[in-house]
Amino acid sequence: MTESEFSHLSAVQARKRFRDGLAVPTSGWSAGWTQANLITVPSNLAYDMLLFAQRNPKPCPVLDVMDAGAISGPLLDGDIRTDLPGYRVFVDGELVAEPSDVSDWWRDDLVSLLIGCSFTFEQAMLAEGVPVRHLEQGVNVPMFRTSRRCRSAGVMSGPIVVSMRPVPADRVADAVRVTSRYPSVHGAPVHVGDPGSLGITDLHRPDYGDAVRLEPGDIPLFWACGVTPQAAVVESRPSLAITHAPGYMLITDAKNSTYQVP
Amino acid sequence: MTESEFSHLSAVQARKRFRDGLAVPTSGWSAGWTQANLITVPSNLAYDMLLFAQRNPKPCPVLDVMDAGAISGPLLDGDIRTDLPGYRVFVDGELVAEPSDVSDWWRDDLVSLLIGCSFTFEQAMLAEGVPVRHLEQGVNVPMFRTSRRCRSAGVMSGPIVVSMRPVPADRVADAVRVTSRYPSVHGAPVHVGDPGSLGITDLHRPDYGDAVRLEPGDIPLFWACGVTPQAAVVESRPSLAITHAPGYMLITDAKNSTYQVP
Repeated sequence: MTESEFSHLSAVQARKRFRDGLAVPTSGWSAGWTQANLITVPSNLAYDMLLFAQRNPKPCPVLDVMDAGAISGPLLDGDIRTDLPGYRVFVDGELVAEPSDVSDWWRDDLVSLLIGCSFTFEQAMLAEGVPVRHLEQGVNVPMFRTSRRCRSAGVMSGPIVVSMRPVPADRVADAVRVTSRYPSVHGAPVHVGDPGSLGITDLHRPDYGDAVRLEPGDIPLFWACGVTPQAAVVESRPSLAITHAPGYMLITDAKNSTYQVP
Repeated sequence: MTESEFSHLSAVQARKRFRDGLAVPTSGWSAGWTQANLITVPSNLAYDMLLFAQRNPKPCPVLDVMDAGAISGPLLDGDIRTDLPGYRVFVDGELVAEPSDVSDWWRDDLVSLLIGCSFTFEQAMLAEGVPVRHLEQGVNVPMFRTSRRCRSAGVMSGPIVVSMRPVPADRVADAVRVTSRYPSVHGAPVHVGDPGSLGITDLHRPDYGDAVRLEPGDIPLFWACGVTPQAAVVESRPSLAITHAPGYMLITDAKNSTYQVP
């Protein structure tokens, strides 16, 4: 199936593929449907996690918080335990499993936060004619831990994680303009240019996802990334955390247009 | 002192006036500085309150959540107990006091949420030449409880409260466009026109603030309002809640431009 075929699948159709076992990054999937990062924690950590998100709205824009134990909600008429293409399970901050289904890990006290994902605004970039290199190259988006710190909240602390997209110099302003209209899915870039000032030493060795080749004249643009809670989990070591696998997002029932401003 | 003199006071200067005892609505004050609603609850209610805000981002856009017991924070280099021009204190959902200083009510377990206020975007409306009638008429903005319900969260539930500004018919589009650029301070109106469909029976009898006269050709525009948590307090009856008095806002150290998108 080509990229364009994925792009016109509805959220429901896409989630069925993932529930049936397909495990692929979701960049380019289900044009018009909002994608989300997942961070699920025990309810005794939910306040700290929600506060961490609220205090770091660029990397952690909250789209929804599901009730304790809930597997569906206003943004998901489905099952949060099965409907993503990939998960990560962390125990005491250690990655212990990367299953395609987390039903075996589920507990009634787990609270799921859905965090906006920048894949959501890639459709708007494409519509504007701004190239999205990782789509052209057929790979996952590259993501990096940075030397910038999040504001901590209770037991949660960690670095800001960013996604990187190379953009031709003459389209940087357009990329900023288009993405800034979507603050709920990370909005405008947090940094343009020099990776070193974010503490990134090698653009070709991302901490998550795949390396992407810059074309001549491209400038690296960095957007705050919803993998940031995962980096905080590794640092803060909660007893249990369940997340999406980076790039393997929840495709929600919300439409992109809901989150566009103004 | 005329309105224009208030408008060029800095946040620090304005807060000093209020700390010294001045009790007036803050519409038109401190142009360029972001204003905020206050909802302070005991820490055992903080998660429900924060979740309520997150689930109702139009009336309750969270600008900051202060640590338990904290009286200052990133948006307030001052004292949350004294720096507002007016407060309300609710015990078990009953309004028991309207002091100008809540130091006597303070406890180390109190968590303060700062919620964006629509006074923040009035400067942008004025700059666009859109009249702000309550400023022209020298009164507080009128606010109404509506028949629309918030999404509930834990023990917190209640109606959406709105502020109303009459706008000339040929400037309604401009008012929508300008305010929609400030989603963190309520953004675009939630309703244009007929008050009845919001369950408002008499535009001249607001539930909070003052009545405002519509000029010929004006259409009432309704914005979600940060008094919504107070209506939820009345309905949900937490043991203690401290809020600003409606229209008597915290003037924060943040600049409006911080919250403008895109």
